[in-house]
Amino acid sequence: MSTIARHQDPETNPRVKTVFDDIRATRKSDFINNMWHYLAFDADLLETTWAEVKSVMATPSALDPLVKEMLYIAVSVTNGCGYCAHSHTAAAKAKGMTSEQHADLLRVIALAAKTNQLATALQLPVDAVFNADDRP
Amino acid sequence: MSTIARHQDPETNPRVKTVFDDIRATRKSDFINNMWHYLAFDADLLETTWAEVKSVMATPSALDPLVKEMLYIAVSVTNGCGYCAHSHTAAAKAKGMTSEQHADLLRVIALAAKTNQLATALQLPVDAVFNADDRP
Amino acid sequence: MSTIARHQDPETNPRVKTVFDDIRATRKSDFINNMWHYLAFDADLLETTWAEVKSVMATPSALDPLVKEMLYIAVSVTNGCGYCAHSHTAAAKAKGMTSEQHADLLRVIALAAKTNQLATALQLPVDAVFNADDRP
Amino acid sequence: MSTIARHQDPETNPRVKTVFDDIRATRKSDFINNMWHYLAFDADLLETTWAEVKSVMATPSALDPLVKEMLYIAVSVTNGCGYCAHSHTAAAKAKGMTSEQHADLLRVIALAAKTNQLATALQLPVDAVFNADDRP
Amino acid sequence: MSTIARHQDPETNPRVKTVFDDIRATRKSDFINNMWHYLAFDADLLETTWAEVKSVMATPSALDPLVKEMLYIAVSVTNGCGYCAHSHTAAAKAKGMTSEQHADLLRVIALAAKTNQLATALQLPVDAVFNADDRP
Amino acid sequence: MSTIARHQDPETNPRVKTVFDDIRATRKSDFINNMWHYLAFDADLLETTWAEVKSVMATPSALDPLVKEMLYIAVSVTNGCGYCAHSHTAAAKAKGMTSEQHADLLRVIALAAKTNQLATALQLPVDAVFNADDRP
Repeated sequence: MSTIARHQDPETNPRVKTVFDDIRATRKSDFINNMWHYLAFDADLLETTWAEVKSVMATPSALDPLVKEMLYIAVSVTNGCGYCAHSHTAAAKAKGMTSEQHADLLRVIALAAKTNQLATALQLPVDAVFNADDRP
Repeated sequence: MSTIARHQDPETNPRVKTVFDDIRATRKSDFINNMWHYLAFDADLLETTWAEVKSVMATPSALDPLVKEMLYIAVSVTNGCGYCAHSHTAAAKAKGMTSEQHADLLRVIALAAKTNQLATALQLPVDAVFNADDRP
Repeated sequence: MSTIARHQDPETNPRVKTVFDDIRATRKSDFINNMWHYLAFDADLLETTWAEVKSVMATPSALDPLVKEMLYIAVSVTNGCGYCAHSHTAAAKAKGMTSEQHADLLRVIALAAKTNQLATALQLPVDAVFNADDRP
Repeated sequence: MSTIARHQDPETNPRVKTVFDDIRATRKSDFINNMWHYLAFDADLLETTWAEVKSVMATPSALDPLVKEMLYIAVSVTNGCGYCAHSHTAAAKAKGMTSEQHADLLRVIALAAKTNQLATALQLPVDAVFNADDRP
Repeated sequence: MSTIARHQDPETNPRVKTVFDDIRATRKSDFINNMWHYLAFDADLLETTWAEVKSVMATPSALDPLVKEMLYIAVSVTNGCGYCAHSHTAAAKAKGMTSEQHADLLRVIALAAKTNQLATALQLPVDAVFNADDRP
Repeated sequence: MSTIARHQDPETNPRVKTVFDDIRATRKSDFINNMWHYLAFDADLLETTWAEVKSVMATPSALDPLVKEMLYIAVSVTNGCGYCAHSHTAAAKAKGMTSEQHADLLRVIALAAKTNQLATALQLPVDAVFNADDRP
């Protein structure tokens, strides 16, 4: 079930084929997951989304690739996105996430959601010391 | 502004004092932030919350302490918890988060929220390959 | 799968039949989607919900019917409501949403989620000029 | 700070005055909180919102009035609505919520948020026994 | 579909068996739902989660057990957690929630979500009278 | 209060100055709101965010500019982002949103949140007719 029909042969569109080729080359795999198959209904949306995902997730940066996947999981779970929880947990495992790290990830994101509720329920005033604008 | 009154002298309650002493000892700092001052209205809630935060966040585990703070930020931001974004960003900086890492963290959690919207809007079917139950 | 059983013959209840008749007449279609079949477990809840949906969505107002469907999609996707994303995307298409408009809708709601994360992560102070209370 | 200007003298509009009079009579208090002052920018929105709040929250029903306020708090906190957390916590206290009940409420909504994260992160399949459609 | 594989024989691990035995004894039922089967991948996470659920939900406290289940539903629905909506609705029914109470619960959590949107859209300033810190 | 310090003189960085100049030219206004002042702590994040906002929001496309602002408000309110609700409500007014349209917008996003809760609470099965993959 989806809200738009999956294109049966998306690579007949050369712009889609170029993106799919780059996904395969970047990931060193022939597998293209559903996100890209469905985004292919609009070549512009496909191109800009892949360009940003590639730039942020597949390019060396200040954070480790596995850490970035775990952050992705944290946001996806908090947003209740099932597809995203599935795809990024698989990606994190492919990047070496151990069972112990997975359990620790779950512990942290579950605790964060819990204390978020407490802070919001109490409507805690922000401690002055946390205000970055006041720091030199 | 808060939904319960901040206790003026919470450490007159010996259970509260024990928790506050442990927070100071664990963090090697005299500063007790508002979360604990307000939770002190119920000693049991204060004790169990601190015990869990200490166990998950201040005890060596499979994930690096700074990574855990960044995951906390990712959940807190996604939940829209202002107090939590403030306190955990300050904690992450105290644990050495650089400006480059901070920018990278923002890039990842912003991109994750964006692609979460796309996946949910399209109601993407989960690719069979992501199903852990089918894996050996 | 649902949390209450779907009534096998809801229109034996005359209050339910009256609502279902009005849904069919308003939409000029015999199809009654699951939302109403399941809400039929409580006639009062069915009546008040349909009355509000009809008043807001099926009555001429300051906003165009298609715009209202797209706003509905934006909220439903942000809340992660799969059923709602499905039903309102179908409704928007029935009201003429083109593939280009659909792609544009996705671009906007995805970008909004992304910049929401940035604004919340940074805990941006609201610019004074945005305060409506200060405007004449 | 708000996104629309607070009307300086809303009761010059007779429709607004009628609603405000009913709020005062229903609550047996002269105080009208900001929600209603700001909604007064559109008499229709004010009337329909108050009619629903009065019907659901101020009319005897299957659930106890204090339980309804606590449910309101649970939703408001999970949605991160600060104004709502403030107003409904005050309302719950006015209806007799004790400090012990308040702490218990916080424990439950914090735990629920925590296990929600675990269930979503694991993408748990729903147990067949939970499917109401299969029950007689 | 899930993000980790369901253990085929989790009770070969004595720590898991001890938790499962306690779940069966506490609930007076042989049925163990998927939440615990999947959490069994990490004995520590299983133990601490069950200990907290048992302490908060299965131990007499200031709130009635059925009220606690309804609060759980309110949070789970607002977070969009399908598994949780299923399991806690079933639990509430097992604890005696009537169809009238269920309808009333739905009315309150739906209204709360609606007025949360209005309060957030208007960015209502919190009325001074709601500030607990100013109360004696 | 914010989580990073506002730069006192961001335009000393030529990359920041180029973006700020483009914001001023695009909007035909000297005013630069806080979003951009704070993002200026990382020139890359500033550049890519502005490029995307300009492309999606300030470039003619399939949807009307005012509709796009209202969609932005719908997402921002549902995410509970106060800064975003303020800035995009101001932007929508600047683009001609009338008071009647504003009230209608509020009615739709409030109703959507309400029926989202009902659909999620009931865990409605998606009607087969809504499945785009089955359509020719």
